[in-house]
Amino acid sequence: MHVIIPAGGAGTRLWPLSRKDKPKFLRDLNGLGRTLIQQTVDRLAGLAEAITVVTGEAHAGEVKNQVPQARILVEPSARGTMGAIGLAAALVERENPDEIIGSFAADHLIADTSAFHRAVSCAMEAAEKNFVATIGITPDEPSTAYGYIKVGAEIDAEKGSAYTVESFVEKPNASRAAEYLSSGNYLWNAGMFVAKAGVLMGALERFHPSLAHALRALASRWEEDRQAAIEQLWNPMESAVIDTAIAEPLADEGGVAVVPAQMGWSDVGDYASLAEVISPGVRNKQVVPGGTPQRVVTMDSPDSLVYAGNKTIVVSGIPGAVVVDMDDVLFITTVAKAQEVKKVVDNLENEGLGFLK
Amino acid sequence: MHVIIPAGGAGTRLWPLSRKDKPKFLRDLNGLGRTLIQQTVDRLAGLAEAITVVTGEAHAGEVKNQVPQARILVEPSARGTMGAIGLAAALVERENPDEIIGSFAADHLIADTSAFHRAVSCAMEAAEKNFVATIGITPDEPSTAYGYIKVGAEIDAEKGSAYTVESFVEKPNASRAAEYLSSGNYLWNAGMFVAKAGVLMGALERFHPSLAHALRALASRWEEDRQAAIEQLWNPMESAVIDTAIAEPLADEGGVAVVPAQMGWSDVGDYASLAEVISPGVRNKQVVPGGTPQRVVTMDSPDSLVYAGNKTIVVSGIPGAVVVDMDDVLFITTVAKAQEVKKVVDNLENEGLGFLK
Repeated sequence: MHVIIPAGGAGTRLWPLSRKDKPKFLRDLNGLGRTLIQQTVDRLAGLAEAITVVTGEAHAGEVKNQVPQARILVEPSARGTMGAIGLAAALVERENPDEIIGSFAADHLIADTSAFHRAVSCAMEAAEKNFVATIGITPDEPSTAYGYIKVGAEIDAEKGSAYTVESFVEKPNASRAAEYLSSGNYLWNAGMFVAKAGVLMGALERFHPSLAHALRALASRWEEDRQAAIEQLWNPMESAVIDTAIAEPLADEGGVAVVPAQMGWSDVGDYASLAEVISPGVRNKQVVPGGTPQRVVTMDSPDSLVYAGNKTIVVSGIPGAVVVDMDDVLFITTVAKAQEVKKVVDNLENEGLGFLK
Repeated sequence: MHVIIPAGGAGTRLWPLSRKDKPKFLRDLNGLGRTLIQQTVDRLAGLAEAITVVTGEAHAGEVKNQVPQARILVEPSARGTMGAIGLAAALVERENPDEIIGSFAADHLIADTSAFHRAVSCAMEAAEKNFVATIGITPDEPSTAYGYIKVGAEIDAEKGSAYTVESFVEKPNASRAAEYLSSGNYLWNAGMFVAKAGVLMGALERFHPSLAHALRALASRWEEDRQAAIEQLWNPMESAVIDTAIAEPLADEGGVAVVPAQMGWSDVGDYASLAEVISPGVRNKQVVPGGTPQRVVTMDSPDSLVYAGNKTIVVSGIPGAVVVDMDDVLFITTVAKAQEVKKVVDNLENEGLGFLK
């Protein structure tokens, strides 16, 4: 499999750990000594024959430092996940349209690597049968933070269980989410896609011919005539997301497969979900990048998450405290207020602190 | 008036602003650029002809730096407020038993200096009439943190209103405190005493003759034979507090006067009371001693109290947050948990952090 890792998310709700110049995928958030993109690459060992990371100019150098084994594809500018994955897919397609590509986010965490491998193997089997395959996360709570996948009929698979996708549905409200959970018929859409390069590009050609044309033409001129091709083809190209551009219309045709998986997946979207994936014993032993291991003492502050910098931290009487002590800024909130961090960051400019973004 | 300032309180509940080696009276807590003991001396300008600070060996040097105009009397060891004030009183008595002494804590805050001056002047008038006079704070809430003074009959005073003290009562429980407040007949005991040196020592002689004897003998040998006198007289002396040693038994005899005062008094005992005396607009603009002025941004965190160190602090969604960012330790709690700080400090030893006390 040729792995494509789109690495562009800002991770605003994990500010100040995640910054404009060093977003969350470039950070070690769970104290394992590996950044999220490094962990993403690590868990693909044994599955990936080649890895292409698609990222912006601003982060290309740091990505190269962190994952030297990957090929870096620099997006000329942001054109959505369809642009990023599509360009990589078009380049693979030129070499071998039957090669399977797998797209995995740079900034998610998966606790159970074996379960991930089983699910990917099964998705690759479906891809061999010309499905665009995805991996759906078996929900364990009625989350309103993710889109859902409605599961259809089972399809033949030797390496696990796979189903057609009846439809993709948008992030639901709370009551709808509860229905989805209790029905047992819905999975979370984790944004992973596994397909033959030619199948993916073929589907795009049917649904968005001009986009497919631009990407294929760009791929054909990428090595020898890149700058002119970017100006003529990429810059005027529409921005699109792969879910709506390909997955949704293709699901209506029965062309998308889903492999359900329980593998401790998290998109680490905010401090609440970050706290969930870090075991209670180490939650308060985190050290911010560049910091030195420091003592953290929490009293009457259960479920707190503390990233120490260069000094001892003592927290008393704040359940679910979130403390991030970095060189230039100290941020304090609670997991209950994790959703408010975006507002905090939006407000920095007004406070004359835009440089801290 | 010869002012005596006993400077010995630890201020544990204001940790880590208040430390063993630099307790709260040596700290600028309200951002006025003057430490508590300096503010104490400042507000006595115009009242004090001489000032004696009684403090321990450990803090004598820093006290001398901060209030160079004061005479420093080094307590050989802790013998309670009776030992500290009594030694100073005995020394004044030797020079002039009719000289009025006034004892004021080093670590309290008083917002209204004019009201304080009026109250002290009235207390001095009562002292001239051979009362041991105190200043009682008109309570504005049913506090259980202070002892109370039961007010007796009004006594003749030209410079304000003064009353005999019927009795001193200990820190009450909540329902008793509510009764005291609603009766209008009780004041808070702020531990201030104004009396002729000879009257105070005379009362001590009647109630605790051996203590009075030791202190007077010590005073007589203080200049020429101090070290031997300390070993013979101070070291074996019993520890006592002035309230129970003199004020309570003397009140039973009708010898104590009280001047009620409303003057924005606070003993700054913990973060909750500290927050109360700092106006909302500057609560989050505090800078820890040695720190540089830093930006503090609080969102959805009303009534919070932030002492910034050398970096920007952003607090979101924690009402009444207390944040103290010092060079060696960062402490985070809430004003609602202000009483728990003592427990936190007690626990530091167990956590291997005793050096931070």
